[in-house]
Amino acid sequence: MGTINTTTNERFFVDYRITLNDGQDIKKIAQEICIEQTVEIPEDCVPQTHWDYGITGIVEDIIPSDKIKNQVLVSISYHCDISSYSVPQLLNTLFGNISLKNNIRIDNLRVPQSFSQLLPGPRWGIDGIREKLDVFNRPLTCTALKPVGLSSTELASMASQFATGGADIIKDDHGITNQPFAKFEDRVQRVQAAINEANAKSGTKTIYCPMLNDEPDLMKKQVDFCLKSGIEGALAAPMLIGCGAFVSLRRQTDLILMAHPAFAGTFFHSNLHGATPAFLLGRFFRLIGADISIFPNAGGRFSFTQEECNELSDALRMPDNNILPAFPAPAGGMRIERVSEMYEKYGKDTVFIIGGNLQQLSDDLSVATGLFLEAVRNCACATKEIL
Amino acid sequence: MGTINTTTNERFFVDYRITLNDGQDIKKIAQEICIEQTVEIPEDCVPQTHWDYGITGIVEDIIPSDKIKNQVLVSISYHCDISSYSVPQLLNTLFGNISLKNNIRIDNLRVPQSFSQLLPGPRWGIDGIREKLDVFNRPLTCTALKPVGLSSTELASMASQFATGGADIIKDDHGITNQPFAKFEDRVQRVQAAINEANAKSGTKTIYCPMLNDEPDLMKKQVDFCLKSGIEGALAAPMLIGCGAFVSLRRQTDLILMAHPAFAGTFFHSNLHGATPAFLLGRFFRLIGADISIFPNAGGRFSFTQEECNELSDALRMPDNNILPAFPAPAGGMRIERVSEMYEKYGKDTVFIIGGNLQQLSDDLSVATGLFLEAVRNCACATKEIL
Repeated sequence: MGTINTTTNERFFVDYRITLNDGQDIKKIAQEICIEQTVEIPEDCVPQTHWDYGITGIVEDIIPSDKIKNQVLVSISYHCDISSYSVPQLLNTLFGNISLKNNIRIDNLRVPQSFSQLLPGPRWGIDGIREKLDVFNRPLTCTALKPVGLSSTELASMASQFATGGADIIKDDHGITNQPFAKFEDRVQRVQAAINEANAKSGTKTIYCPMLNDEPDLMKKQVDFCLKSGIEGALAAPMLIGCGAFVSLRRQTDLILMAHPAFAGTFFHSNLHGATPAFLLGRFFRLIGADISIFPNAGGRFSFTQEECNELSDALRMPDNNILPAFPAPAGGMRIERVSEMYEKYGKDTVFIIGGNLQQLSDDLSVATGLFLEAVRNCACATKEIL
Repeated sequence: MGTINTTTNERFFVDYRITLNDGQDIKKIAQEICIEQTVEIPEDCVPQTHWDYGITGIVEDIIPSDKIKNQVLVSISYHCDISSYSVPQLLNTLFGNISLKNNIRIDNLRVPQSFSQLLPGPRWGIDGIREKLDVFNRPLTCTALKPVGLSSTELASMASQFATGGADIIKDDHGITNQPFAKFEDRVQRVQAAINEANAKSGTKTIYCPMLNDEPDLMKKQVDFCLKSGIEGALAAPMLIGCGAFVSLRRQTDLILMAHPAFAGTFFHSNLHGATPAFLLGRFFRLIGADISIFPNAGGRFSFTQEECNELSDALRMPDNNILPAFPAPAGGMRIERVSEMYEKYGKDTVFIIGGNLQQLSDDLSVATGLFLEAVRNCACATKEIL
């Protein structure tokens, strides 16, 4: 028998929900995935050595699903070395070519301890961010600098008001990056200075998360600028910059990372193909380092159901060996009237994001932010008294 | 009136196919997209200055479509500055948040001359690659080093046989990246040396395209290694590494770029939401620098229709100011028996990819490659005689 220069025998496990058309054989489809995602040659050409070393995927389990008619839960394991210990190649193995097929939906990924460098999870997690902010008993409040088109000075003035009103986190709108209206470095410097000043006056703490959304070399410069300017967090959309670029931010900096779901939506619009929101925006974004994962709340401008939002939040917060829990951040057209309902649904360990609605509430954004904070505090207090 | 520090008044145009549910108002939906993809605040909060400067999207045209019931073609223009002249932010504007909605499909992108640095198109294009190879009158032949798990020495031996048989292009299988079985630098060096030797013997020319699929810092090292090792091409999947990383390869190197569709599939599985294959794998991949775009041919292991494949090929090859035409490369389980049919469908300016089937044809891969080349030459000659 030939040899293959593997470094381990360990495997990682992917759970796929596969929906069958009439007459399709699940064993055959599962085996095709095992080949397609690894050796990608006709089965009769696979060398015996490859079977012996488990280089092809292996069907570990086939379980009928009760959620959708004709849907079956299939667990496939892959040899860890196939991942090349790189996030882009891990995604390639999970769903590269089969993304071009139909009726395959990723539901979960289970990895061995040895993947702790590849998939480190959040740097700070829920407890780490709470300690930075010194806020322990209520959801966190977050709002956004917008609209794109304002100057750095205007955005800094807005940030000053949000910070004065007591916002825990201020993020750039995800569409504000490096436009000529408010170039990245100029904006970041002015906004952080305005926040520092407001925080010094009020004695509270606000963390600023500027949006990183550029090509690799420029983004590297922007990150360096953030680090030397005392910026503590960043917002980025893994599907826009690449999940490999996102996990690099996690490994190479100590920034609090907020993940934005922009450009991820085609994974979700069918419940037959792609990934569950709980997997991609929950489990996977957490594994690649998101401390906070933003998602479109049910009942806002987008189309996630409450059940999907709950599963996503669970995937971010559930205990996992050595992977810290992350904050869910329901967003997308949230309004201050919904705070108590959101609190009931998501509980304390949540980042509430209200953007445009604060601008509708008052011309003085510090007043509007104060109302938002008060609404959040009231919910948390009311619940405490009940307990 | 306030001022906004714009650098231009130019706009770019995006054509969306929008499918209406009963009772929906297309004007309202189109206007929501104009807001969502730019200022992202409630319409009553948009400052007058933003309307005056055209910072929000503008609905330019609404045309009923004859392709799908209730589908309407909507053209929306965006201010060029919104793109931040960065590919990730351009994609964010095209489809960031609305990817999370439903029934919106990107059909086309039309950009002004001033985007020539942002979206440079192919470095070499069809003519440039033909000149490098000195092959002008037939489709190009391409095959793949696989399966993953083979050593660098084994892959180099395979490459030697492919080159001896006369393959124009040899690519890594897209799942072969930097695994311990055949680490990137070791593999690339050995494979290129084997090809050089075979080419020197036969007097023909074969271009090698190794797969780049790593996180940004490591990929940068791999690219540097390629350049100093005389590598002339590369294979990469824009949706895995990020389209910004792909266009950076185009701007920063002279490599021939093959784009792979891995991880792009969720854009296509519904014909109501996402993007047409012609847009994403054709028009867009060409704009960000693909000289060759690989796609799953109709009748292979995947689910594109022949019409979709034709439209995709047209999008790659159609004349466009200053943007060179690119090669379509139908692939995905192609077999030598299909060469003449593929020639009829795609014509001369095509890269034919046959991977696993060559391994089925003969244990001597130089013989199998020779048969492939002969089949391609025969088609081209037969057609010439008819003309």
